Amino acid sequence: MLNRTLARQAVRSLAVSKIREVANAGMGRDGLLPFWFGEPDTVTPALIRAAGMASIDAGETFYAQNLGIPALRDALARYGARLHGGSHGRCAAENIAVTSSGMNALMLCEQALIAPGDRVVVVTPVWPNLVEGPRILGAEVVGLPLAFGPQGWQLDLQQLLDALTPDTRLLVVNSPNNPTGWTMPRGQQRAVLAHCRTHGIWILADDAYERLYFEGEPGVAVSPAFQDLGDEDDRLVTVNTFSKAWQMTGWRLGWITAPAALVKDLATLIEFNTSCAPTFVQRAGVVAVEQGEPIVASFVGRLKACRDFLVPRLQALPRIQAVSPPGAMYAFFRVEGMNDSLSFCKALAAEHGLGLAPGAAFGAEGEGYLRWCFAATEDRLDEGLRRLARAL
Amino acid sequence: MLNRTLARQAVRSLAVSKIREVANAGMGRDGLLPFWFGEPDTVTPALIRAAGMASIDAGETFYAQNLGIPALRDALARYGARLHGGSHGRCAAENIAVTSSGMNALMLCEQALIAPGDRVVVVTPVWPNLVEGPRILGAEVVGLPLAFGPQGWQLDLQQLLDALTPDTRLLVVNSPNNPTGWTMPRGQQRAVLAHCRTHGIWILADDAYERLYFEGEPGVAVSPAFQDLGDEDDRLVTVNTFSKAWQMTGWRLGWITAPAALVKDLATLIEFNTSCAPTFVQRAGVVAVEQGEPIVASFVGRLKACRDFLVPRLQALPRIQAVSPPGAMYAFFRVEGMNDSLSFCKALAAEHGLGLAPGAAFGAEGEGYLRWCFAATEDRLDEGLRRLARAL
Repeated sequence: MLNRTLARQAVRSLAVSKIREVANAGMGRDGLLPFWFGEPDTVTPALIRAAGMASIDAGETFYAQNLGIPALRDALARYGARLHGGSHGRCAAENIAVTSSGMNALMLCEQALIAPGDRVVVVTPVWPNLVEGPRILGAEVVGLPLAFGPQGWQLDLQQLLDALTPDTRLLVVNSPNNPTGWTMPRGQQRAVLAHCRTHGIWILADDAYERLYFEGEPGVAVSPAFQDLGDEDDRLVTVNTFSKAWQMTGWRLGWITAPAALVKDLATLIEFNTSCAPTFVQRAGVVAVEQGEPIVASFVGRLKACRDFLVPRLQALPRIQAVSPPGAMYAFFRVEGMNDSLSFCKALAAEHGLGLAPGAAFGAEGEGYLRWCFAATEDRLDEGLRRLARAL
Repeated sequence: MLNRTLARQAVRSLAVSKIREVANAGMGRDGLLPFWFGEPDTVTPALIRAAGMASIDAGETFYAQNLGIPALRDALARYGARLHGGSHGRCAAENIAVTSSGMNALMLCEQALIAPGDRVVVVTPVWPNLVEGPRILGAEVVGLPLAFGPQGWQLDLQQLLDALTPDTRLLVVNSPNNPTGWTMPRGQQRAVLAHCRTHGIWILADDAYERLYFEGEPGVAVSPAFQDLGDEDDRLVTVNTFSKAWQMTGWRLGWITAPAALVKDLATLIEFNTSCAPTFVQRAGVVAVEQGEPIVASFVGRLKACRDFLVPRLQALPRIQAVSPPGAMYAFFRVEGMNDSLSFCKALAAEHGLGLAPGAAFGAEGEGYLRWCFAATEDRLDEGLRRLARAL
């Protein structure tokens, strides 16, 4: 007999994270080296933690505004203007909604925009949460796969434009992309924006990794973003997170940049989702945004060194095809002859003490690949490489 | 021309909080006395704040488990067994999902259970969020109104059972109820549970105010709850929050107690909503649950004194019909001759410096009433009464 206390069918058919599945299988093992999660290996910088503690100490334990405390919305507006230019009128506090994590920001945008049956196009392989969120809301999700070659991961622009049929409601792009590091070039962004303007298609840009970009102009690290191009009346929403750039995964703080008209509706949705982010968490966010540039610069420098340490050594291993990613914090590499990445990763964890994420976790196109989060010390990366070599 | 950057129609037609509307209208005024929000006027107790600060200081700034840290799930399981009896097998850690606020707990349960078009019955008047959440997910929401009389707010049981047609998916009950304080008697709970068992209807019990109950047996304050009656295979989910009993509104921490089979699906949904609550917030929660009984007892004693100060003085005013509520922290009273509570409250705030919540905020049945949160000092309540008398 069917268990009568299960969730509805649409929820039961959501993909459970294959990364969690591997981690659960391997977590008991002594001396395991985990590179499976997308999480820096460092504690949040002391400056930022101090701001959170001071706020709790001062008794800021009451409800906050739905859209965030004014100090943080103002700081994020200035930050957005600094990174993406303020001329197009999308960098005022009224364009900002503070959220209870980047994930929460995605869910809120999806609730605002997606009705059951809507067509949603997602560039894949991708962090599974970007695909499953729309499914919870009843969307029909269509994946548009990147292709892997000697130059790394590439998007066929025409293929994407063809997939963006006039009845498409929403395009989801994560750039720099988790897991591949693929970053949409400026020219492709322009073409996609023009196409979406013509057909009234919304763009949801997940810019969680915009600061973890290694190929840009000298100066402040930031990837090309739709936000550089969008006007106030464009159907464009950008979501971001404090988790990566400032190593604040555990704080669950993110934000949305959107047309002011949509932000009003987001306030209502925030009320009915988490109501607000804690004030003391937001105080930590203010310090991150206003005083965190040295933290970001040092983290990006470190990540680049990690990448440049890991990728050539991966390339030197037999059966492995790896390309140096322009952004994010992952090597997403092919292993010849491996076609069940989930089983392979479980065995890798259980028998060799190496924790990697299976490519299949990021969609069918990811099968045959592994993801390695390289935000770790050289010693640990080196030992990981030794274990991988042994397994191969 | 229609603004093209608005949210979808179903979201734009959500009720914006009339409480917020009044508060926005009155917030600038010097010396205003705000009793409009459902929030204690006291900072979170130092013992609980210290636990949060210590965790941040110790560097617990990484991702937590989707369902919460084991220490908190264990503590909540023990707490649930202590309050509601552990014999029916619904008080193990596997029955607990920690959430990013009570509101978030409601949204997660709704996502798990409600498909577009589902019939949802809600006992009203009620906190508007309980009605709007299901609407976001496309439910058809049917209100079942309480009746006000000399004995206070009463539910017509037969009327509710009739509304719970076999095609009903979900019944939502908030008891003790915000705004009326109405608490469902044990006999009604038994009858409703039996009826829902017969027809396979889910019960979503919002027990946010279960500890703020003034009429129970001597000893630990707790209201009658569906959780006292439910078995592991009952279609019953209970949501709760740290906000009220431990004065932790700003921490955004709540939890769900549910059949273990459903908790597995909730883990997936949590991943796609906020992923997890911050570990340092959960550490504060552990201290609240494990060491917070003196805090709860003292707060309940204080609230009872507030209620017993305010209600008789309201009853002594002309045009007012008030009954002492058995639970929660609100007086929800009728004002004869007033039939636009929103305008009345705006004027009350602007002209008399008194911030109350309009009854219409809690559904059409609430029109003609005002809500007063009495979690405040006698001095402030007294001055509020003077201002109300002047306005009447």
